[in-house]
Amino acid sequence: VLTIVPVEGLPEVCEGDDLAALIAAATTLVDGDVVVVAQKVVSKAEGAFAEPAPGEDREAARRRLARREAARIVAEAPWTLIVETAHGFVCANAGIDASNVLGERLTLLPVDPDASARRLREGLRARTGRTVAVVVGDTFGRPWRLGQTDVAIGLAGIAPLRVERVDRDGRPLTVTAIAVVDAVAAAADLVRRKAGGVPVVVVRGLDYDVDDDATARDLVRPAADDLFPRGGTR
Amino acid sequence: VLTIVPVEGLPEVCEGDDLAALIAAATTLVDGDVVVVAQKVVSKAEGAFAEPAPGEDREAARRRLARREAARIVAEAPWTLIVETAHGFVCANAGIDASNVLGERLTLLPVDPDASARRLREGLRARTGRTVAVVVGDTFGRPWRLGQTDVAIGLAGIAPLRVERVDRDGRPLTVTAIAVVDAVAAAADLVRRKAGGVPVVVVRGLDYDVDDDATARDLVRPAADDLFPRGGTR
Repeated sequence: VLTIVPVEGLPEVCEGDDLAALIAAATTLVDGDVVVVAQKVVSKAEGAFAEPAPGEDREAARRRLARREAARIVAEAPWTLIVETAHGFVCANAGIDASNVLGERLTLLPVDPDASARRLREGLRARTGRTVAVVVGDTFGRPWRLGQTDVAIGLAGIAPLRVERVDRDGRPLTVTAIAVVDAVAAAADLVRRKAGGVPVVVVRGLDYDVDDDATARDLVRPAADDLFPRGGTR
Repeated sequence: VLTIVPVEGLPEVCEGDDLAALIAAATTLVDGDVVVVAQKVVSKAEGAFAEPAPGEDREAARRRLARREAARIVAEAPWTLIVETAHGFVCANAGIDASNVLGERLTLLPVDPDASARRLREGLRARTGRTVAVVVGDTFGRPWRLGQTDVAIGLAGIAPLRVERVDRDGRPLTVTAIAVVDAVAAAADLVRRKAGGVPVVVVRGLDYDVDDDATARDLVRPAADDLFPRGGTR
């Protein structure tokens, strides 16, 4: 049995805050927990903000900044800009967001979400004595399908893929590699609402492979294997 | 707190089996549970099988049948065929699968997975007196990203999208519609392994909108809104 527990009572996160300290104070962890943290609070703690230019509204600023942050433009429409980020993630508006950000600022993605996750994992170990995994989740859409689900953009201590080589009858499976950390991020999102102020969720009881060196960048499909072009360079 | 509970001890499902009876005998449900059923057992119970032609191996049969089942070919490579199915889903090999299927047969997707889910919901209500939601999950990849997660290809009694109109500060959110049923399907997959024989999972404690008329086809993005072409007709 897996349980998915929202961490209630966290304060509004500000630049310079120690997320590990805030989480350790708000909940009790056990070894093996997966701590899922919304990208937004990681960006806030790290000060990954941008501001609209004078006279620019936030939506225009978001579009301008998304273009600035893009390694490539994948697709463009009046209502969105799909880009490949410097990390290799393909997402809308380079993950730049204005919701639940005070004032007129916008959040950018963390510069290195895997490093953010590693620091948080180490911080939680130092403060609680527990060895957990950390997943940084962000809300991505997908082509051909309505609605968004959270995926992992950063991680520490957990293998992102669960490769399954045989079926129940012992026959090889053609290609089954479950994106465990994406499923974890999506599952965590089920217990919070954007208006609910619950940026941290604990997934307890998951049978996962511990991997101290894994990264979410491992989930970026090599361009040579990809059937769907990422578009030209900027 | 959300709990995700695998239903252990189900027998191998055969054509004509009453899935509701099997599930009701294997577990105790409560009102509001979301019962997540793997596509594979729905297809087996409904007899949605195909066979290789004489002398044809299963992989060749899969490719041939995927082409037959496709409404459109979206992309093609030596290792996979991405198609749009008659239901409107874009997925590899039209969802045709050979793993965990006895003998040489392959499973096709259910003809109408929403109808399958509705029948199962009614059957569970008749046998247990409980009103639950049902999600039929299948394993899909996504462009640009490695690994697969489960998504909902059929549902009953649950609104597929959770549309969030304001953030915590009361400001409108640009476009946030969480694909709750996709997250539910992905979460359910966390407690089973392909080799584990756990095709049914109960998600308990989810705060969701009951909708008796919703379908998973509602999650198919209208082509006019889609930035990613589905390819030509066959």
